[in-house]
Amino acid sequence: MTKKSLGAETTVYPTPVFIVGSYGKDGKANAMNAAWGGICCSEPPCVAVSLRKARFTYENIVNRKAFTISIPSVAHAKEADYFGIASGWKENKFAKTGLTPVRSELVDAPYIDEFPLVLECKLLHTFELGVHTQFVGEIVDVKADESVLDGNGVPSVERIGPLAFAPGPNTYHLVGRCVGKAFSIGREL
Amino acid sequence: MTKKSLGAETTVYPTPVFIVGSYGKDGKANAMNAAWGGICCSEPPCVAVSLRKARFTYENIVNRKAFTISIPSVAHAKEADYFGIASGWKENKFAKTGLTPVRSELVDAPYIDEFPLVLECKLLHTFELGVHTQFVGEIVDVKADESVLDGNGVPSVERIGPLAFAPGPNTYHLVGRCVGKAFSIGREL
Repeated sequence: MTKKSLGAETTVYPTPVFIVGSYGKDGKANAMNAAWGGICCSEPPCVAVSLRKARFTYENIVNRKAFTISIPSVAHAKEADYFGIASGWKENKFAKTGLTPVRSELVDAPYIDEFPLVLECKLLHTFELGVHTQFVGEIVDVKADESVLDGNGVPSVERIGPLAFAPGPNTYHLVGRCVGKAFSIGREL
Repeated sequence: MTKKSLGAETTVYPTPVFIVGSYGKDGKANAMNAAWGGICCSEPPCVAVSLRKARFTYENIVNRKAFTISIPSVAHAKEADYFGIASGWKENKFAKTGLTPVRSELVDAPYIDEFPLVLECKLLHTFELGVHTQFVGEIVDVKADESVLDGNGVPSVERIGPLAFAPGPNTYHLVGRCVGKAFSIGREL
């Protein structure tokens, strides 16, 4: 297969749509959209998210040593995108979207009530990588709306309807139909 | 919204299906399936992938200071899963799948010819996080099959048909229909 070189760029599919919740110095709840991140350790359970230093959220995480990640469903794609366009330095994004910040009881950060899946994280590591700083948070709890849990109490992808971001075309996509069970469909090979 | 606590676990959607290519000590090409990873910096362009020390790939990346990430299309879901089930310590996964390892001209690692999107990475950082070690690679090139490029030369999500992994249900999902343009659909708020 002839492959064409596209150069040194950050193109890979999928990337997540993480809405990162944090508190400002004055206690103002903020949320931003971050696609540079992912789970990075099983024990302790950790998630990484990378931010530029200029972000309102950057200072918040440094100060409060905590953040949350709220996963939007496709029904809130517009709000999720807005969280990536507007700056917490200038705007009260919760007021603008009408979404509800909920103070986590476990970490010093707010999550989004209307989003179905939420991770509450304590800052564990801060790695300087270049224009982005990578924050590694220990996941102290995952919370989900009862309505998105399947019969086994596991968050259902179909009920959540989560989004994926595609750098390059800069588009959001529905994480769609199940195409197989992991650690299973490969066994026949 | 009443949210139910699920405990401290690594449940978030989507996670990627990264097939990590590396060379063993004897030059044997190997590939493994890793879901704990993601883009972590724009400049230098970097991608992170977390592995347990027991993996065949772990030692390969430490020794060669390089790896690739090949993104499977849905047509190769079975092979992608197999790469996560079988161990490179015991099996020649390329022989078993019939897929073709291609030696990167830029880094000391092989990528998968039949997979439509490939990242070639040089190891930049190694972070010990717990049971997983996070490798941060600088993306020195992205390569794509001509057949998956759109009219602007950008890899098309629809033409690739990439997979997402969902921890919890342990299922693969198609990254499906476009639901909006990023940095755009949120502007109306």
